[in-house]
Amino acid sequence: MESVHVFAPATVANVVCGFDILGFAVEAPGDEVVMRVTSKPGIIISKITGDNGRLPLNPEKNTVSVSVRHYLQSVGRNDLGLDIELHKKMPIGSGLGSSSASTVAGLFAAKTLLGDTRDAAELLPFAIEGERMACGHGHADNVAPALMGGFVLVRSYEPLEVIRLPFPKDLYCAIIFPEVDVPTREARQIIRNKVALKDAVTQWGNIAGLMSGLYTNDIDLMGRSMQDVLIEPVRAMLIPDFYKMREIAMDNGAVSFGISGSGPSVFAFTKDANTAHKITQNIQQHLADIKIASQTYVSGINGVGPKILGQH
Amino acid sequence: MESVHVFAPATVANVVCGFDILGFAVEAPGDEVVMRVTSKPGIIISKITGDNGRLPLNPEKNTVSVSVRHYLQSVGRNDLGLDIELHKKMPIGSGLGSSSASTVAGLFAAKTLLGDTRDAAELLPFAIEGERMACGHGHADNVAPALMGGFVLVRSYEPLEVIRLPFPKDLYCAIIFPEVDVPTREARQIIRNKVALKDAVTQWGNIAGLMSGLYTNDIDLMGRSMQDVLIEPVRAMLIPDFYKMREIAMDNGAVSFGISGSGPSVFAFTKDANTAHKITQNIQQHLADIKIASQTYVSGINGVGPKILGQH
Repeated sequence: MESVHVFAPATVANVVCGFDILGFAVEAPGDEVVMRVTSKPGIIISKITGDNGRLPLNPEKNTVSVSVRHYLQSVGRNDLGLDIELHKKMPIGSGLGSSSASTVAGLFAAKTLLGDTRDAAELLPFAIEGERMACGHGHADNVAPALMGGFVLVRSYEPLEVIRLPFPKDLYCAIIFPEVDVPTREARQIIRNKVALKDAVTQWGNIAGLMSGLYTNDIDLMGRSMQDVLIEPVRAMLIPDFYKMREIAMDNGAVSFGISGSGPSVFAFTKDANTAHKITQNIQQHLADIKIASQTYVSGINGVGPKILGQH
Repeated sequence: MESVHVFAPATVANVVCGFDILGFAVEAPGDEVVMRVTSKPGIIISKITGDNGRLPLNPEKNTVSVSVRHYLQSVGRNDLGLDIELHKKMPIGSGLGSSSASTVAGLFAAKTLLGDTRDAAELLPFAIEGERMACGHGHADNVAPALMGGFVLVRSYEPLEVIRLPFPKDLYCAIIFPEVDVPTREARQIIRNKVALKDAVTQWGNIAGLMSGLYTNDIDLMGRSMQDVLIEPVRAMLIPDFYKMREIAMDNGAVSFGISGSGPSVFAFTKDANTAHKITQNIQQHLADIKIASQTYVSGINGVGPKILGQH
């Protein structure tokens, strides 16, 4: 094989009550990477589309090439020459795991070119290196579901342990990205370093409830459990009309509503695609009324993760 | 039916990482209540055994009669006359849910005498009233498993929502009660009101991991997840040679080790009864060497909760 074309999905991290430990992958949007073996050793990024010039072509500074280089080093293939095209098909800085989708597409492409048959989950340490570069924090709650598909629990970082979780097959996700700027670093910095123990207890009761709902296909229990008393009240301030969007979502039949990652994207869970479409339409209309452009997506949960779109 | 004799089990609350939200019931020890219908309205406590005179016979001050009275009021049967004998068959102030076992035995006896066929779980609000009186804090993580059996998650207090969890059938519990005094109120008061967010994240990753282990019968995952970075480091100071006891437990094949409730009892999970016996014997010997008497118990998980020992 000399070239491969890979898609990797957007992801929703935190999932309201699971700050830094939970995430899931969606079917769309996502990013694509076309990777070719070249005769000259080293990694180059020959093209990036869809980024409005915001991402670096310099392979030392791009998360895709940096994580792929870590991977090649680990398998002793620094001798390989790779040409990477990155096609951004989802918004940057949206809170939907944009850098993770690119990184995972790159790593999965490299793994495929090398004929490496390991479980994609084993690429996680290299993807985390990419995240560390993109956000200044080597978190795994976007890259793990992007790599592994479905819902993923990051139980522990030291040692790293991630767990695939089951999820209800009739669960749908409505995503709205209001086109305002909420940089990940800043969204993380405004969070308090200390929290009240009683709030932490409320939070871990909800996390345990969400886990129970996932394991028992109880979407209503998932909804009751998806409350965040710690992070959301702070981050919601950075998101336009957050509580109004929640009201619209819940009034239109959402099971739950919250911030995706560090925002500004928000998401709702529903029990069918029609309800999800109604929610995205109504929230998009509300945002348009207050002069905020938005992009919306309706998707089932992506149980697969990255996929090969073509190879030669 | 004029009289009933009921057993209710001891319970292990917190389960290391699930402070205030998780608990499970054991097969032994536990408390017993004998309850008789009398001709004179009102509740009396005619006898308490096994308490060394520490518990009040005054029905206004005893958690058993207080919770039973709340229950009778709720079903409109204040007219009933009840005579209660309480037989303590487990140590008081041990961190094994002693007051909960008594309260649940009393409530289950009253429910049985009234022919009330509701699920025992519906008695939980009355049992919580008993806990509020016993510990100054209306927590549910002992009474819920004592009433419902097995592992129980207290997802939320307002509104109250408890969830029965599955558990591995080959899980055993070794319990050691070092006979030193750790009052529940004080054990709660030394806990810090504020915790570091990063520690809370570690904790809820572990809680989610423990939930995953329970749902997938993965005892090793349960063990890896049963780490408490928040409460144990503080409460361990009140327990003699806590870290030495952990070392003995782990060296003898324990899957996990921690404080039961607010202590001083400690417990270990094992995959068989023999390992649990070896652990209790070795820890009891170590405590004897440092002149501390102890009581030990080995038990499977009690999936049933309270049970009727006799009725007339």
